[in-house]
Amino acid sequence: MAVNSPLPVAAHLTPVPGLQLGHAEAGIKKPGRKDLLVLRLASGATVAGVFTTNRFCAAPVQLCQAHLASGKPIAALVINTGNANAGTGEAGLANARATCDALAALLHCEPQQILPFSTGVILEPLPLDRLVAGLPQAMTRLAEDNWFNAAEAIMTTDTQPKAASRTVSIGGKTVTLTGISKGAGMIRPNMATMLGFVACDAKVPQPLLQQMVREAADASFNCITIDGDTSTNDSFMLIATGAGALEVNDAASPEYAALRQAITELSQALAQMIVRDGEGATKFITIRVEQGRSVDECRRIAYAIGHSPLVKTAFFASDPNLGRILAAVGYAGVNDLDVSTIDLYLDDVWVATRGGRHPDYREEDGQRVMKQSEITVRLTLARGDASATVWTCDLSHDYVSINADYRS
Amino acid sequence: MAVNSPLPVAAHLTPVPGLQLGHAEAGIKKPGRKDLLVLRLASGATVAGVFTTNRFCAAPVQLCQAHLASGKPIAALVINTGNANAGTGEAGLANARATCDALAALLHCEPQQILPFSTGVILEPLPLDRLVAGLPQAMTRLAEDNWFNAAEAIMTTDTQPKAASRTVSIGGKTVTLTGISKGAGMIRPNMATMLGFVACDAKVPQPLLQQMVREAADASFNCITIDGDTSTNDSFMLIATGAGALEVNDAASPEYAALRQAITELSQALAQMIVRDGEGATKFITIRVEQGRSVDECRRIAYAIGHSPLVKTAFFASDPNLGRILAAVGYAGVNDLDVSTIDLYLDDVWVATRGGRHPDYREEDGQRVMKQSEITVRLTLARGDASATVWTCDLSHDYVSINADYRS
Repeated sequence: MAVNSPLPVAAHLTPVPGLQLGHAEAGIKKPGRKDLLVLRLASGATVAGVFTTNRFCAAPVQLCQAHLASGKPIAALVINTGNANAGTGEAGLANARATCDALAALLHCEPQQILPFSTGVILEPLPLDRLVAGLPQAMTRLAEDNWFNAAEAIMTTDTQPKAASRTVSIGGKTVTLTGISKGAGMIRPNMATMLGFVACDAKVPQPLLQQMVREAADASFNCITIDGDTSTNDSFMLIATGAGALEVNDAASPEYAALRQAITELSQALAQMIVRDGEGATKFITIRVEQGRSVDECRRIAYAIGHSPLVKTAFFASDPNLGRILAAVGYAGVNDLDVSTIDLYLDDVWVATRGGRHPDYREEDGQRVMKQSEITVRLTLARGDASATVWTCDLSHDYVSINADYRS
Repeated sequence: MAVNSPLPVAAHLTPVPGLQLGHAEAGIKKPGRKDLLVLRLASGATVAGVFTTNRFCAAPVQLCQAHLASGKPIAALVINTGNANAGTGEAGLANARATCDALAALLHCEPQQILPFSTGVILEPLPLDRLVAGLPQAMTRLAEDNWFNAAEAIMTTDTQPKAASRTVSIGGKTVTLTGISKGAGMIRPNMATMLGFVACDAKVPQPLLQQMVREAADASFNCITIDGDTSTNDSFMLIATGAGALEVNDAASPEYAALRQAITELSQALAQMIVRDGEGATKFITIRVEQGRSVDECRRIAYAIGHSPLVKTAFFASDPNLGRILAAVGYAGVNDLDVSTIDLYLDDVWVATRGGRHPDYREEDGQRVMKQSEITVRLTLARGDASATVWTCDLSHDYVSINADYRS
């Protein structure tokens, strides 16, 4: 059950002209489950992405990066759940290549024009035969209005599909954006999350699209954490089909800024859905650190709070044991931090000032906020103008249950 | 319940000549519980310590450091549980000072000759009146053979007291060592843990003792983690009463090395007791990283594994979901790590080689080891001669329960 379930998945997901989606039940891990997805791009589309920084990055992630670097036009993306194809060594790379070969044969294109993605259990061999056997079914279902099935096809421990659409007008031209994401555990993206796909019908050259996807990721998927575990497979992909009226050619143009803004907002919505559906999550926590010397130190403090098992269990229990937040601030690794200038707020409640308990703070006020399902922690450092926001969730019994039973 | 409960607390804790201990039930948090401890030192004793690096370090920690720096001979240590006196600002410092004043008056010494320690909830005012009122009771109980009560008096969420004794012969002279420790949550010491006290009856000048306590801490308390939360109050203190026959005056002498070895082994025993009694712990995990370029990178990888909630829940479930270990290695922040040279062993089972699943690895072998209550994870990096060991425990439902209910 996600926080404030059901998630606000759009009743109608707007098709993005120039992009078709087809899903299959390939039986990769369990029979009868949607577990394979093909995204077919019309010619002229550009694709850009950011990937996990995990040194054990999965075979498909390595192949994606190589294929994007080849500069060949991307014809399709293929995504499987049920197996991460990570920690699989040379055999894993061969399986990812064979996946691309199989889809390229069906599409009559080169293997480098295919981008592969996998999510699921690590260290187990990819069941290549079942995956390849599922591709024809996915091809027969290719359609522009198939986004909801696509969102379902990439789920693993997610309890709900995650998708959103926007239609914006930029310079008098209508742009359609739709995206999907998945992820509920092993979530502390470091470049992007596992997995996010956003498509728009603007026309954007690939280098500019690469800049945009990085900027959008930094303000969305790179601001969330569930358990601090950076996945081996994180990938966030931005597709510009070019089938619409808008064309963006200059990073300094107002059109670029407007499109980036729309994509960032959509990405934030998708990223926040991942947190709300975090494994075992019962609360959605926004951590805002202000008045720091640098964005980096603000993020470091926000993540220390967001990763502390003690802070997270206190949120789960609705227990205003707020000293734990200060302890996390103190060990965040900002070595010249003067705690005597720090103030702490829980929503509208002023909890601590100058590093100590605020004289007017009353436990019942903290208790009132802690009982809410959406809570904002705000810290002011009084040493600069930088700020950062991180979104996270609590740590509950269900997190332990879900991850103790993940493979069974 | 600790792992392999009961913990191996010595049936007989050997008194250390020159050191008396007295406890009291001061009612600091709850009535009728041992919650106050005084350690009274004979004249001629030296004391050295290492403390938390948390920027929100508690008022007593700040005072301890100032009093040690004053160079005055230490007459007594005073420890309370039930309240951490951290995140308490100027009022907290005043309360810690008043504690020292009160004990100094009873001992007819200066306040700078007292070292204060606190452990318990953060951000709440120290109940100074009750603490001070308990001191006379502790004084009347001062005795050299009171170590077991002392170990009980410093417990918080600990389920069992932690103590150990050793008697060693160094250069033909007998040295007696006894120590106590506490801690079960908010444990990822960074200098020392919350709290450890080790005493011996050797005679060691303070600067040499300071070197020894740092070296012993780095090989013991600084190698454990339960939840990655570095406490505001961590303190590890080494006392040399000088009442015995051994005198150590040179860090290059065999006597120094032998005494440091005895103290390190005792400290490791105390530190491992903390892990075995970790909040909700059901398993004791040794993580050994070998063949690294530096101790720092080995420790970083070992801690990434030891802090991963996904790895810890897999241990709790006895689930050989060992890809999670590789994922943690990958995001540990060793940016030039070549995963294709890494091998992973679980006790005697060879799980992964050259970054991928070992061809002979069988799930049932991993399963067999995962079911044990004591497990060693060993990684070889094949890039150098450095190594590091970290001791940790699993993450269970009880961890969540304990920390969701800590203050109730």
